[in-house]
Amino acid sequence: MLDPDLHSAQLGVFDSGLGGLTVVRALLDALPAERIVYLGDTARVPYGTRSAQTVIRYARGCARVLTQRRIKALVVACNTVSAVALDMLRADFDLPVVGVIQPGAQAAVAAADRRGSGKIGVLGTPGTVASGAYPRAVAQLSTRLEVVAQSAPLLVPLVEEGWLEGEVPELAVTRYLEPLMRAEVGVILLGCTHYPLLKPVVKRIAARLSGAELPVVDSAVATADVVRTLLEKDRIPRAASEGNGRPRLELLVTDLPTGFAERAERFLGTHEMPGVVQVDLEPG
Amino acid sequence: MLDPDLHSAQLGVFDSGLGGLTVVRALLDALPAERIVYLGDTARVPYGTRSAQTVIRYARGCARVLTQRRIKALVVACNTVSAVALDMLRADFDLPVVGVIQPGAQAAVAAADRRGSGKIGVLGTPGTVASGAYPRAVAQLSTRLEVVAQSAPLLVPLVEEGWLEGEVPELAVTRYLEPLMRAEVGVILLGCTHYPLLKPVVKRIAARLSGAELPVVDSAVATADVVRTLLEKDRIPRAASEGNGRPRLELLVTDLPTGFAERAERFLGTHEMPGVVQVDLEPG
Repeated sequence: MLDPDLHSAQLGVFDSGLGGLTVVRALLDALPAERIVYLGDTARVPYGTRSAQTVIRYARGCARVLTQRRIKALVVACNTVSAVALDMLRADFDLPVVGVIQPGAQAAVAAADRRGSGKIGVLGTPGTVASGAYPRAVAQLSTRLEVVAQSAPLLVPLVEEGWLEGEVPELAVTRYLEPLMRAEVGVILLGCTHYPLLKPVVKRIAARLSGAELPVVDSAVATADVVRTLLEKDRIPRAASEGNGRPRLELLVTDLPTGFAERAERFLGTHEMPGVVQVDLEPG
Repeated sequence: MLDPDLHSAQLGVFDSGLGGLTVVRALLDALPAERIVYLGDTARVPYGTRSAQTVIRYARGCARVLTQRRIKALVVACNTVSAVALDMLRADFDLPVVGVIQPGAQAAVAAADRRGSGKIGVLGTPGTVASGAYPRAVAQLSTRLEVVAQSAPLLVPLVEEGWLEGEVPELAVTRYLEPLMRAEVGVILLGCTHYPLLKPVVKRIAARLSGAELPVVDSAVATADVVRTLLEKDRIPRAASEGNGRPRLELLVTDLPTGFAERAERFLGTHEMPGVVQVDLEPG
C-alpha cells in the first residue's frame, strides 16, 4: 500500500532512448487521468550492447532522476533493463516497479492459450534474442509453450527513420516473419518497444504468410494493462490532472534534445508533444 | 625509418566490429605480400555512441593488443577512432598509424578535382555525420570544396544482414542519395567501413538518379592505397609471407566468436577465411 501523500504523484517511465515512448503512449491511452514523466537516456543509448553490470548502473541512475521527481510507480520501458535490473531496482527503491518483458510474455501466453497454439514467435533485437529473456519469462508461466525467437536487426533503424509503411518495411518484416511462420507459431510477440509502430505491417504480413489472422501482442499495451491493474489493485490514487493545468507528460533526455522532439512525436501518436528538457545523470 | 628487424612483421588493423574487414580486404588486394592481424572489438561495438574519452581508452587497448604481436604499422579501420584518437595513438606507439578518414577525404577531393565538381556527398552513420569529421578533413585539403553529409542509419544493419542486392537496399540507398543528388554533388564518398559492400548498388542508383556515371569513393580502398604508399616510401620491408606457410590473415575478436566467422566471410570477398580467436583486453 502506498503513501496516501502520493495522490498527485506521476508515473515514472524510462528507457535507453526513444522506444519507451510507445509504452508512454499506451499508458496515456489506458490511464487518462495519470500524469507521466519520461526519461530517455539518449546519451548512453543503446544499452543492449553493454554488460549487465553497466546496465544496472545506468538503470539506477535513471531511476534516481525519476524518484527525485516524486513518482508513485516506476515503469521500465526497456527490454535490456527489464531483463537484468528489475530485482535490483525493486530492492533499491521503495515503490512498484514494472518491466516490459513479463507483461509481454503474459499477454502472449494468454493469446496462445486462447488459440490453443503451442508456439509463440518473438521478434526482438539481436541483444534481446541473445539474452533469452522471453523464453525464460514464458517458461515461468507455462511448461507447455515453446518460444521461437527471431532477431530482427533492421526494425529499430526502420522505425527511427520513420519508415513504417511501404515496400521496405514490408520486405524486412516478411524476411523476419518467414522463419516464424515455417515454425508454425500461433502468436507473434513484439519484443522491442520500437516495434509497435510496425504493428500494422506485422499483422498484414503475418496474415498474408499464414493465410489467417494471427494475434500480434504488443508489449507496450500489455505493460500499460499491468500498470492499470496495479494502480487499481493497490488503490494507488490517480493523479488529478484534469483542470489543474499541469501537462500530462514531461520528457527528459540525457543527450542534446535536438531532433528528439521530431522523432518522439511519431511515437506518441495523437498525444500532445511537450517540450524536451535535458538532464544530467550523476556519474555512478 | 623503421627498425629493419620488422622485416617479417605484420600490419595491424582494428575496428570496433566487422566493418574494418573491408579495409583488410582492400589491403590483401593491394599488398599481396603482406600478412595482417585484425582485431574486432566486438564486445564493445558500437563505438559511435561513446564519449571521445571512452573511445580513446578503447582504442589504446586495441592498439596494445596488436603492438604486442609485432606489427610494423597500425591501420585504424574505424571512423569513430580515426576522428578522435589518431594523434594519441601516434604519440603512444612508435610506429606509423593510418586512419580511414584522411585517405577517404583525399581520394574524394582528387575525384572532385578531376571532375571539376565543387561538391562532395558523404554517406555516413549518424555518429560520423554528427562528428563533422569528413567536412573537417576536406576543409584541410581544399578551401574550394563543399561537403554535403547524409546520415544513412539503415545501411549498416543492411550490410550486417547480408542484404546487399535487391529492392530493399535499392530503396534505402535511393532515399539517402536523393538529397545528395538534389544538392548536385559530383562525387560520393562512402564514409563508413561497412558501405563498400553496397558500392555496386550505390553506383547504380547514383547513375540512375543523376543520369551520369558518378565516382563513388571507397575509403577502404583509399586507405589501402595510403598504406601501400607509406610502406614504399618508408621502405618498410614487406613480409615474406609466400612459401613460409604462415596464413596471411589472423582474426581476433573480444566477444564470443560465434557467428563472427560467417558474417566476416562476406566482408573478405574471395580471400581465405581464417579461424577466429577470442582475446581479452586488459581493463583500462
